[in-house]
Amino acid sequence: MRKTIAIVTGGGDCPGLNAVIRGVVRTAIGRHDWRVIGIEDGFEGLIGKPRWRELTLASVRGILQRGGTILGTSNRGNPFSFPVQHEGRTEMVDISSQVVDNFRGLGADVLIAVGGDGTLKIAQSLYQLGLPVVGVPKTIDNDLRATDITFGYQTAVAIVTEALDRLHSTAESHQRAMVVEVMGRDAGWIAIESGIAGSADVILIPEIPYDIKRICQAVEKRRNSGSRFSIIVVAEGAAAIDGQKVEQQQAENNFGVARLGGIGHLVADQLTTCLDMETRVVILGHLQRGGTPTPFDRILASRFGVRAVELIAAEKFGRMVALKGQQVTDVAISQAVAQLNRVDPEGELVLTAEALGISFGR
Amino acid sequence: MRKTIAIVTGGGDCPGLNAVIRGVVRTAIGRHDWRVIGIEDGFEGLIGKPRWRELTLASVRGILQRGGTILGTSNRGNPFSFPVQHEGRTEMVDISSQVVDNFRGLGADVLIAVGGDGTLKIAQSLYQLGLPVVGVPKTIDNDLRATDITFGYQTAVAIVTEALDRLHSTAESHQRAMVVEVMGRDAGWIAIESGIAGSADVILIPEIPYDIKRICQAVEKRRNSGSRFSIIVVAEGAAAIDGQKVEQQQAENNFGVARLGGIGHLVADQLTTCLDMETRVVILGHLQRGGTPTPFDRILASRFGVRAVELIAAEKFGRMVALKGQQVTDVAISQAVAQLNRVDPEGELVLTAEALGISFGR
Amino acid sequence: MRKTIAIVTGGGDCPGLNAVIRGVVRTAIGRHDWRVIGIEDGFEGLIGKPRWRELTLASVRGILQRGGTILGTSNRGNPFSFPVQHEGRTEMVDISSQVVDNFRGLGADVLIAVGGDGTLKIAQSLYQLGLPVVGVPKTIDNDLRATDITFGYQTAVAIVTEALDRLHSTAESHQRAMVVEVMGRDAGWIAIESGIAGSADVILIPEIPYDIKRICQAVEKRRNSGSRFSIIVVAEGAAAIDGQKVEQQQAENNFGVARLGGIGHLVADQLTTCLDMETRVVILGHLQRGGTPTPFDRILASRFGVRAVELIAAEKFGRMVALKGQQVTDVAISQAVAQLNRVDPEGELVLTAEALGISFGR
Amino acid sequence: MRKTIAIVTGGGDCPGLNAVIRGVVRTAIGRHDWRVIGIEDGFEGLIGKPRWRELTLASVRGILQRGGTILGTSNRGNPFSFPVQHEGRTEMVDISSQVVDNFRGLGADVLIAVGGDGTLKIAQSLYQLGLPVVGVPKTIDNDLRATDITFGYQTAVAIVTEALDRLHSTAESHQRAMVVEVMGRDAGWIAIESGIAGSADVILIPEIPYDIKRICQAVEKRRNSGSRFSIIVVAEGAAAIDGQKVEQQQAENNFGVARLGGIGHLVADQLTTCLDMETRVVILGHLQRGGTPTPFDRILASRFGVRAVELIAAEKFGRMVALKGQQVTDVAISQAVAQLNRVDPEGELVLTAEALGISFGR
Repeated sequence: MRKTIAIVTGGGDCPGLNAVIRGVVRTAIGRHDWRVIGIEDGFEGLIGKPRWRELTLASVRGILQRGGTILGTSNRGNPFSFPVQHEGRTEMVDISSQVVDNFRGLGADVLIAVGGDGTLKIAQSLYQLGLPVVGVPKTIDNDLRATDITFGYQTAVAIVTEALDRLHSTAESHQRAMVVEVMGRDAGWIAIESGIAGSADVILIPEIPYDIKRICQAVEKRRNSGSRFSIIVVAEGAAAIDGQKVEQQQAENNFGVARLGGIGHLVADQLTTCLDMETRVVILGHLQRGGTPTPFDRILASRFGVRAVELIAAEKFGRMVALKGQQVTDVAISQAVAQLNRVDPEGELVLTAEALGISFGR
Repeated sequence: MRKTIAIVTGGGDCPGLNAVIRGVVRTAIGRHDWRVIGIEDGFEGLIGKPRWRELTLASVRGILQRGGTILGTSNRGNPFSFPVQHEGRTEMVDISSQVVDNFRGLGADVLIAVGGDGTLKIAQSLYQLGLPVVGVPKTIDNDLRATDITFGYQTAVAIVTEALDRLHSTAESHQRAMVVEVMGRDAGWIAIESGIAGSADVILIPEIPYDIKRICQAVEKRRNSGSRFSIIVVAEGAAAIDGQKVEQQQAENNFGVARLGGIGHLVADQLTTCLDMETRVVILGHLQRGGTPTPFDRILASRFGVRAVELIAAEKFGRMVALKGQQVTDVAISQAVAQLNRVDPEGELVLTAEALGISFGR
Repeated sequence: MRKTIAIVTGGGDCPGLNAVIRGVVRTAIGRHDWRVIGIEDGFEGLIGKPRWRELTLASVRGILQRGGTILGTSNRGNPFSFPVQHEGRTEMVDISSQVVDNFRGLGADVLIAVGGDGTLKIAQSLYQLGLPVVGVPKTIDNDLRATDITFGYQTAVAIVTEALDRLHSTAESHQRAMVVEVMGRDAGWIAIESGIAGSADVILIPEIPYDIKRICQAVEKRRNSGSRFSIIVVAEGAAAIDGQKVEQQQAENNFGVARLGGIGHLVADQLTTCLDMETRVVILGHLQRGGTPTPFDRILASRFGVRAVELIAAEKFGRMVALKGQQVTDVAISQAVAQLNRVDPEGELVLTAEALGISFGR
Repeated sequence: MRKTIAIVTGGGDCPGLNAVIRGVVRTAIGRHDWRVIGIEDGFEGLIGKPRWRELTLASVRGILQRGGTILGTSNRGNPFSFPVQHEGRTEMVDISSQVVDNFRGLGADVLIAVGGDGTLKIAQSLYQLGLPVVGVPKTIDNDLRATDITFGYQTAVAIVTEALDRLHSTAESHQRAMVVEVMGRDAGWIAIESGIAGSADVILIPEIPYDIKRICQAVEKRRNSGSRFSIIVVAEGAAAIDGQKVEQQQAENNFGVARLGGIGHLVADQLTTCLDMETRVVILGHLQRGGTPTPFDRILASRFGVRAVELIAAEKFGRMVALKGQQVTDVAISQAVAQLNRVDPEGELVLTAEALGISFGR
């Protein structure tokens, strides 16, 4: 039977999303002669008047190397808890039946949902409502346990490492401590990998509460040995042992615009009190999501896209593609969500970093 | 006569400084068999106990492609106005005689001063005190009138353009207005060139006061034509027509750490009031100074270094190297300082940008 | 009057061509509300059944940063000397009237011809036949005298310099002489600029016949001073003083496929006879044309595109845009063609390179 | 007991070697207070008068991001089969006792040998002679079975992918078939991964003999669907089903210089006979070894270096570090050598590529 596949990308954008879309389209059309339609702007595209477009071989030409998603994405649009205005107040309403109706109205047989924890939970709930769903995991932070690694993550590490390489020359010239805040609310993967690769002196991650005194000692020791600058990489979710966690409200500036960053400035402030040294803060923010995916991410995302179509061919719904070792395999979506992949404070990566002379402030 | 040349780098670091140093050393030693010594940490290296090192052919090996300066630099250390503690207060004192004595004590015959307006003014004053001085202009902002272009500037433009390329994919995926704050306190060169190259929709520069209404119109028009995101590049010295200039104190955060940026957040705030659109701010800060110089900057800086030595061979002191058209030439340092090179609001570059559909908010 | 502009890109592809096309389309449509049509595959698109497409604002979206030309290009298709099969033989025939007829048949008013010497000569001849023509110079080799610099050239220099940076580490590790052959049949600009920027030890250009003995001396001297590797950059048009010029036929391999390179292998061969040193040859070939244009090239090409439309608005036909100093201006096409811009063997660039210790084999 | 570790790098250079050296030095000195000496130029440094240098924390500063090896390397110098002149002839002699004596004469306790199959075999033989040896695998081709992946490989894939990205624009503009020859004598890893990542249309690898007719069909089919260019990636060890393998002697040019490449030109030649299409060949050669390692390679190489020192601390000699899944572990060197890791013609990677529409010429 000739199937019609709908594909949706949800959550924050991530390098490799286009490679997934291309992998799905090329396999579905080229191999199975199926039809593919792309839902626009995440699940929002299935709410109200549906927003979608036909995806042909031509429409995925040249997108393999482009960051972001040609379909658009959204952090909003959870159909199981959708904000509706009612008597002047905003109420969260379950409008999932509307999403299901819209999906069916498009003539689609299966939904491929590409996204992180939030998107996959919605996908799982839709699956439980009877929708044939296949999931593709996406998390730039690499914090999903169900897959060894996800696409986008390595690109983010590459961008941060490149920034660290660049900051070395300026830190060196001015004998400064450079605090670089990177993504990682719950897991310190980006911080630790880019920190090792970018020759950081201190790395602060959510998994290891830091003691500012230890950091100052590390910087001081380095200075005494003749290196008059230090690079400190801080994951946005890092926190001090004594509970100093930068509050979300501190991250809001007085103009009401969400200001990226917070912990980076806090750490820099703490450093200036214990060190007689110039300090500068760099917050990489959205730069970490941008740009062309690394070859690894292009390949992994392509493999995920191809595999998602194969799952459909095998009628294995409610499943999510995943990387295990060197192999792409599949797991139950239900099992995949809500299990966080965090850096092991006593694992090989942390111990390697410490052997290299990097301090975690512990 | 076998000369001894001292070289000092002052002010903010800048890609290409090492290429100047290498050009000086290779020409002075390889061609003239002179001696070169490098003063450390800007003019601070000539205050108190001199800090310097011998520069040999080996010591400049491999530095051509490295950003920053192997000699270190400093924004402090103006010997004509140096902070000295006196009876519990800080007084600004002229200690230039100490600098001259230290210089002579090193056995140096000539000083090559590489730096921006501040450094060149000190160089000129030292020259007036009788020191044989040759200047090399350095300004990453490209705001010195005495030379058509300076090294480091093009590298900064390349870094900003690369960032804009990356941000396009994320802006596109989320339908956001992305405000990118870049260097340029007095001149908008980096903003306008990277904005054109990086396909910005709006560019705000110090030379053209902006009207926020015009910016909103431009973004609105773009949205109506189907492009649901906009990239706004803002020079840190940009200001609104009605005098809303972000004050330096706003740029200080409550931890006492100088927070880079300010105007970017202000513009984003203003945008959110007139547009129903997500807005994100990225402040590139020190990233703009980092990294390997572009080929053009490596070549220009090398040419400046070679020429500086030739000026010494010709005993043309009180002169500064400069690029005029395709030729490296020299001008009086006195004439070079304090003349700002600003973007002409009616010049070809601005008009080209406008023809391409870019708004300056006017 | 609402004009229809036709634009054609001819000759080898070059980074920046798309920026010219985008500049023309944005200015012509956005500012003048004119119509733009793109001729496909160079002048071949005006021979036989015309091949062209409408160019809209949408069709130039996202192309600024893409290398090559969306219109296609061709080295063939000179309408004044076109190969026609006649009685079993190929005759070169003037079919320019067909081109003019096709052009008129499209309803076009003006032709913008973007190309190098060959394309511009055709443009000039068509202009003399009465066609309103405006030219935009394109030469990746930077060898046109009528403009100070052309787009694409700097990108090529950047790619070669990046390759030299990479080859340094491998040359160093193995103590090899690395011969790198780069573009430049008639002029050595790419070789000299990338050679200076990429820290080459020897640079061979068409303008300075080389003596192999001098090169061997330079490499030997370097080895004696402790640097056990050397980087030799060779322009494809370089030649030895005693007339050893690699013949075109040597560049053909025994499979009948044109093998890029030739002089590089010859120089490597000559080096191995005078030095006891491993030698490796790298021929960069088409890599030098590829990739995203540098910011400078994107801006220059955009300026050229905008200016070409302004020339049309001013009805200045038979003119070509050009860069003079910092300004884009225009010159007669007739004056522009056939005047080569070559490296001055006694000019500042060569002398600077020699001061840095680089040998030209003289 | 305070140990003295000697480290040697052998075989072709590879991005990440410096990261291994740095990892060894930082761990050995910083953690154990041992001494590290670096043997120069592979095993050649232990033949004749030993060539070595002391490695301190300062001597590994700034090398993490540099390609190649600061110690130098060599493909020659197998002490078990060393060329010695004897009565006018070259004889291969076992001089391993000299190497052992030299090693002992340096006061070294353990040898860390970093290299590929050849180097590891020598290391194993020295271990059997009683030398305490630890191995670190290095193969840019990723063809060692004992480790899931090696450093340097991913950097090579990144460089090839970048080249393919660049060549797309030129291939597209000219409607050419572009044949790109990449490393991979025995295994097609670089070809297949960069081919998938760089959107190749055809990939030829040693593991899958190709039928030129199939390739022509693939290119033809692509042309019929409107894509008038094709990218063909060829591993240097690829071969046709009918045994057309390009002979080593064909790879020698008439100047006696080893000419990289061969199969690329052969494939291009074959293509021109079945297609009416311009063909160009690019041979990436040594470019693939150069440049700064990717973050992944910097981290993996650092982990290998740290682990090698830990093996010494645990007195586990005759072992080699290896990556298994996400973990660095160790295996017997004897078991590691001579087992090739090749692409599985029916494995997931090949099938994924075929699902994406890529032809392997079968």
